[in-house]
Amino acid sequence: MKYRVQVEVLPRRGILDPQGRAVADALRTLGFADVEEVHLGRHLVVELAAASADAARASVTAMCERLLANPVTEQFVVGAAETA
Amino acid sequence: MKYRVQVEVLPRRGILDPQGRAVADALRTLGFADVEEVHLGRHLVVELAAASADAARASVTAMCERLLANPVTEQFVVGAAETA
Repeated sequence: MKYRVQVEVLPRRGILDPQGRAVADALRTLGFADVEEVHLGRHLVVELAAASADAARASVTAMCERLLANPVTEQFVVGAAETA
Repeated sequence: MKYRVQVEVLPRRGILDPQGRAVADALRTLGFADVEEVHLGRHLVVELAAASADAARASVTAMCERLLANPVTEQFVVGAAETA
């Protein structure tokens, strides 16, 4: 069965996030004065074959631990596995 | 009131996604043979002051249209506004 799993990877709270800061500054320059903070990370959609939705999520979690996220500086959230 | 709004920005379907492709290849090389496709985009968390949750979402949608996403090559989804 084919599944689609969403992953978000974001800088850990307290870790310097210069990209997020640059985006916040740019937004304020454009006139969005109410912006207080922006955090910038990655969003991934992984499509994979797996025996079940649980197996798909477990596999994507292993991918995050091995490649998709840097555990020192980033945290990740693996979303639900939808059939694709 | 302070709100936190999640945004995901992804390459439009059918648009070349070389980064996603590189990630898929790297995952297969690492032994995740069941990976079929990966799409790679950005995840943003915007914290802003707004009068209501609807106003916060509308403001973030305007930010996406003006800066956060490239409408030619990317699509974006603005999530619900949570109080921060």
